[in-house]
Amino acid sequence: MTGNTIQLDKNGNLKHFLTTEGLSQSLLLSILDHAESFAGVGERAVKKVPLLRGKTIANLFFEASTRTRTTFELAAKRLSADILNLNIATSATSKGETLSDTLHTLEAMHCDMFVVRHANSGAAHYIATQVAPHISVINAGDGRHAHPTQAMLDMFTIRRHKKSFENLRVAIVGDILHSRVARSEIHALSTLGVLETRIIAPQTLIPKDAENLGVQIYHDMDEGLDGVDVVMMLRLQKERMSGALLPSEYEYFQRYGLTNKRLEKAKPDAIVMHPGPINRGVEIDSDVADGERSVILQQVSHGIAVRMAVMAMIMGRQPDNMGDTE
Amino acid sequence: MTGNTIQLDKNGNLKHFLTTEGLSQSLLLSILDHAESFAGVGERAVKKVPLLRGKTIANLFFEASTRTRTTFELAAKRLSADILNLNIATSATSKGETLSDTLHTLEAMHCDMFVVRHANSGAAHYIATQVAPHISVINAGDGRHAHPTQAMLDMFTIRRHKKSFENLRVAIVGDILHSRVARSEIHALSTLGVLETRIIAPQTLIPKDAENLGVQIYHDMDEGLDGVDVVMMLRLQKERMSGALLPSEYEYFQRYGLTNKRLEKAKPDAIVMHPGPINRGVEIDSDVADGERSVILQQVSHGIAVRMAVMAMIMGRQPDNMGDTE
Amino acid sequence: MTGNTIQLDKNGNLKHFLTTEGLSQSLLLSILDHAESFAGVGERAVKKVPLLRGKTIANLFFEASTRTRTTFELAAKRLSADILNLNIATSATSKGETLSDTLHTLEAMHCDMFVVRHANSGAAHYIATQVAPHISVINAGDGRHAHPTQAMLDMFTIRRHKKSFENLRVAIVGDILHSRVARSEIHALSTLGVLETRIIAPQTLIPKDAENLGVQIYHDMDEGLDGVDVVMMLRLQKERMSGALLPSEYEYFQRYGLTNKRLEKAKPDAIVMHPGPINRGVEIDSDVADGERSVILQQVSHGIAVRMAVMAMIMGRQPDNMGDTE
Repeated sequence: MTGNTIQLDKNGNLKHFLTTEGLSQSLLLSILDHAESFAGVGERAVKKVPLLRGKTIANLFFEASTRTRTTFELAAKRLSADILNLNIATSATSKGETLSDTLHTLEAMHCDMFVVRHANSGAAHYIATQVAPHISVINAGDGRHAHPTQAMLDMFTIRRHKKSFENLRVAIVGDILHSRVARSEIHALSTLGVLETRIIAPQTLIPKDAENLGVQIYHDMDEGLDGVDVVMMLRLQKERMSGALLPSEYEYFQRYGLTNKRLEKAKPDAIVMHPGPINRGVEIDSDVADGERSVILQQVSHGIAVRMAVMAMIMGRQPDNMGDTE
Repeated sequence: MTGNTIQLDKNGNLKHFLTTEGLSQSLLLSILDHAESFAGVGERAVKKVPLLRGKTIANLFFEASTRTRTTFELAAKRLSADILNLNIATSATSKGETLSDTLHTLEAMHCDMFVVRHANSGAAHYIATQVAPHISVINAGDGRHAHPTQAMLDMFTIRRHKKSFENLRVAIVGDILHSRVARSEIHALSTLGVLETRIIAPQTLIPKDAENLGVQIYHDMDEGLDGVDVVMMLRLQKERMSGALLPSEYEYFQRYGLTNKRLEKAKPDAIVMHPGPINRGVEIDSDVADGERSVILQQVSHGIAVRMAVMAMIMGRQPDNMGDTE
Repeated sequence: MTGNTIQLDKNGNLKHFLTTEGLSQSLLLSILDHAESFAGVGERAVKKVPLLRGKTIANLFFEASTRTRTTFELAAKRLSADILNLNIATSATSKGETLSDTLHTLEAMHCDMFVVRHANSGAAHYIATQVAPHISVINAGDGRHAHPTQAMLDMFTIRRHKKSFENLRVAIVGDILHSRVARSEIHALSTLGVLETRIIAPQTLIPKDAENLGVQIYHDMDEGLDGVDVVMMLRLQKERMSGALLPSEYEYFQRYGLTNKRLEKAKPDAIVMHPGPINRGVEIDSDVADGERSVILQQVSHGIAVRMAVMAMIMGRQPDNMGDTE
């Protein structure tokens, strides 16, 4: 699944947004630049621009996620699009309809964009290969594979604090193995040219192909955090605990939980990120999550701006002619 | 339940849309003509007209149906109406409130229109007799009785392909007995003056009053399809299979499944329709469903246009003054 | 939990609406006056004003209530706000996220207002203490504590029929003990200066602090209704029946059900109110509920106007510059 063959149209513009892998640095920077234009909309008295008025966007969530669905819904509404929320798990496919028939039916209703969340890796990519030419697909998380809008809102947050990427050391901490977020972050950081990306996790939570991803692998938290500019924590899926992959929750926190004391190893101006929802006391201490280095809530705000940017770019709309507030 | 007494206001305009039965040919043609005006909206860059701005439409679904609910929701949004989705099965009526009290409460909230889906035949008609004069009711499917917007989108699709109705032979194939779609189609085809309507099904799936419906009854698929212009397949409710009404799924497909070979009996330019969702390999072969004679996805698109037309007509709005895109 | 310290901003304007307790008479009258301005919007051809365009309102329902949620949703839509419906019970908090983190996440999405329904008394007040300064909270019912918009729509309905409050005798009948509605009504009636507020219930359904609420307590229905101007019935939660608090449903109706015969004790022009949904034959006879003194459906209509008024006041918008219909 290389990104650029299917994600771009013949003019090199973004057509689908499925993965950060394979997209050029200039395209990723363009997403960040567009998002800057939209970041101000959330601060306005009237948080709405008419850019996608009369467009129809369908949230196709095969896997429930209120938080992610809500950010896409808000982004669509603030662009003045019409949005359909479809919980596919409970609808037509349960009547024996094939996925392909469900998709073609939504196409025939003149939807313009599908925002897809699915438990299986590759689902959004598969859907992008199936849909009619007028439909764009945004991957809102597929299995362990990718979550590109999450990665780009993280990049946006890093750039806001660190201005440029080239001299940065970034550490990603936690369950890398099962994390679509980590995978999309690693690709984006690499393309944007950071100095070093580190992953910190017990051996059981490191993917087998990690060495091909261009990252440094650490099993010791103190070593891995030494001198980094950015600490990206991952959510620990508690259901992993029951397997043989992890020691107890207590022991995990002792070894990989982020505390203020441990954060002293990082640079004095290091920022702390987390995609949410947070497990306080599991992967991150409350003092850190609520501390002055935490940019976790900024990530949420930036998530709306980045999703507005991606939706607008895909529909060929420029924020500089976004018009007055509706 | 004759249609014209309750469905029309004193000037003969559409007030409720409960059944195709009893409505005049000119009224049905008027719905089709209005739908032509709306069919273009879905193709526009801005798929929205301000015709029902400030109106409130409530989707009252006593029986779940994501697909039908979605088409009404889209139609309402593209007319700029506000839409409420109420899943009645899980709400106030479960607190012991009577249906009548639920309806009057929604009236008091100044709703303008109820779109009603219910497992019981006659439910939409009953609701239309209960509501205040300012409320209109659209039947989105009631038990085995009627599904008039589905029938009209089918008529729209036929007219688009066959221009006029008068010389047509139409076959409806499948579980006629339990099908509100078939019943509404039969009435509409009759009123619109087709040459012949045939129903093709095993004896156990033919309603007892079939002979009064003005149709020709066939038990043999090849005989029934001979020389027809339009083949309307019905969805086979798999739950019927468990009863004594049907042989095995395999045997059903052998006798009543539509294959390309069987379709050779029909006219060379015959079109194939299906209300969806499709059971591939049960009532229809994939080669037919995806073949060049299939107009199944066109039916979906036309469904939005027809529902916009019915909503607008009921609210007394003409598409010719629908104004610019919002 | 006194109302005025947290509910008002430093200029004395409404910031949160959590309880009717502790708010001044002039503020309550101002809500009623604003609601008068909005009452006409529901009667217009275009039921929409652009007053809150570009604002984001989140319905946070920790306890399901289709009816109440729908009225807030409609009020928000008719003010042109964007509304998010979040069923919190089934979303992020179930992933182990703390309530506080859920709230801060929604803040970071630039929501402007939370409408909160919760089974625990004090929940909305607690949330109002936790949120960022730019967020307002409206209590849509918290445990047994308060339901202030319900109380104000009741006050609005009383004023429409009785013009002023000062000479009124008002009886509240039913399960006072468990009723947030009763509690909010008692405070509002007291502040608005009615002559007398009576509560009528069996001893087991009277709160222990009732005597401090400034009400007259009656256990006999005929005595309690004698000469009153307004009868406010409460919904009997049927689940209370199973406990030791109540006799049988039949016996309850015999002693505290409102019939036309019993209503003769009240003044000839007395009005009958009920917050809905009604249990016909349990707390109120159908003849009364549907009779000419019943203003129950008017309460529903007024509920939209009052909620629009509260939302607009909280956002600092005046209905007199509400602009033309959108």
